Amino acid sequence: MRLIRLRHAGTPRWGRLEGETVHLLSGSLKGEEGLTDAGETVPFDPAALLPPAEPSKIVCVGRNYADHIREMGNAGPGGADLPLEPGIFLKGPNALAEPGGAVEYPEWTENFHFEGELALVIGQRAKNLSAPEALGAVLGYTCGLDLTARDKQREDLQWFRAKAADRFCPLGPWLETELTPTDLHIQTRVNGAVKQDSRTSHMIFDPVQVLVYVSRYVTLEPGDVVLTGTPEGVGPLERGDTVEVEVEGVGTLQTRIV
Amino acid sequence: MRLIRLRHAGTPRWGRLEGETVHLLSGSLKGEEGLTDAGETVPFDPAALLPPAEPSKIVCVGRNYADHIREMGNAGPGGADLPLEPGIFLKGPNALAEPGGAVEYPEWTENFHFEGELALVIGQRAKNLSAPEALGAVLGYTCGLDLTARDKQREDLQWFRAKAADRFCPLGPWLETELTPTDLHIQTRVNGAVKQDSRTSHMIFDPVQVLVYVSRYVTLEPGDVVLTGTPEGVGPLERGDTVEVEVEGVGTLQTRIV
Repeated sequence: MRLIRLRHAGTPRWGRLEGETVHLLSGSLKGEEGLTDAGETVPFDPAALLPPAEPSKIVCVGRNYADHIREMGNAGPGGADLPLEPGIFLKGPNALAEPGGAVEYPEWTENFHFEGELALVIGQRAKNLSAPEALGAVLGYTCGLDLTARDKQREDLQWFRAKAADRFCPLGPWLETELTPTDLHIQTRVNGAVKQDSRTSHMIFDPVQVLVYVSRYVTLEPGDVVLTGTPEGVGPLERGDTVEVEVEGVGTLQTRIV
Repeated sequence: MRLIRLRHAGTPRWGRLEGETVHLLSGSLKGEEGLTDAGETVPFDPAALLPPAEPSKIVCVGRNYADHIREMGNAGPGGADLPLEPGIFLKGPNALAEPGGAVEYPEWTENFHFEGELALVIGQRAKNLSAPEALGAVLGYTCGLDLTARDKQREDLQWFRAKAADRFCPLGPWLETELTPTDLHIQTRVNGAVKQDSRTSHMIFDPVQVLVYVSRYVTLEPGDVVLTGTPEGVGPLERGDTVEVEVEGVGTLQTRIV
């Protein structure tokens, strides 16, 4: 099933996309009744898409592909070649940006990078997930762009403005609910040129391990987002660039840098 | 005015506390109409208190008192004695814990620390605040306890489980809306013994500077929380301890460690 979030009559709504038809849904991921069919359809309009999530937090994994760690010239604390546990950081809901949207190149950075990622959206409250139940907490899978002010990432105490600034997390275009996330092709293109090209099987900590780890410390809420880390090939963006993150079995998230 | 958040008939509500009487309010900080008098009063019950906030994010300042930086033996990146800009990190709403509540000593840390802080709760959406308008975005002031797994803070890539785990941010007991935050006595006691004893005038970046800095990068939403950093005197907690954070002009936030 393909779930979209869209602006309809001025209000954010969930919908189920079948072909070019949107079946509107009632309710919220956070409500006790969940999402139910509203009995109304509208034609699909890509310009109405919103990020397919309602996060109370966006939980991100840093350094989750070995080749990306090597290109950044760093590893986990203590100098280990590869991290022994997932390295987690947070963005707030302010970071979301809609699929197909435009993100302003911030005037306060001189090194604005793309990082294409597989994103998970949580479907039910989850704490202390076991490995066998972890993927059952996921509502669906989508594409995420972890925009990063690389210069500030190196300067700051913690990755706040480098990672968590407004609109630093384009997400979409929709959720695919029937997908096995463990070995999907993931590609990031800038103006059509391939920059990142990997498979989710190259993750150091796969989605199950990430969910087990994260849910040991924080309660995941319906609508929360988990970004699973970026493969090698990150690089700088310029004003006017178009970034595309494509995840096999999902589709393509497009973002313009303006 | 003293604003409380309480559980009333099973539902979280805002109230205005006058003496021992709660005037219930309708609405939400996030609603377009804000809070309005519901025309109903109930007796004050401290056991019904909830954290006085509805955050989409909890924005925290690290290393904001010079004496605390010296006791931790560290400073800003680059080895500067004092940070040149506020060092910011995030907690999610999962970190909130109610005033007067109990927080479990996590089984995954062996060095669980208290950090008493002045907390601000935002009253209106704010981006790019100027210094003169900064405090106008604040709904009120309260006490915050920035619980910290010190061992994990040193081990991890970013301060995720060290700072952002469930219930790592007791907040309360209420908001004082008429307060000048620039020179307030702040004290943290453990089992009645004074551990931290300072004044908010000792902050390196005062609340105005913090709000101007933070709102340059992220949009602050009504109900968001800003923790302004902790003075010297942090230390470890044991199961059975009672921690009290007292801010002059507000009151005392009490938390039991169990």
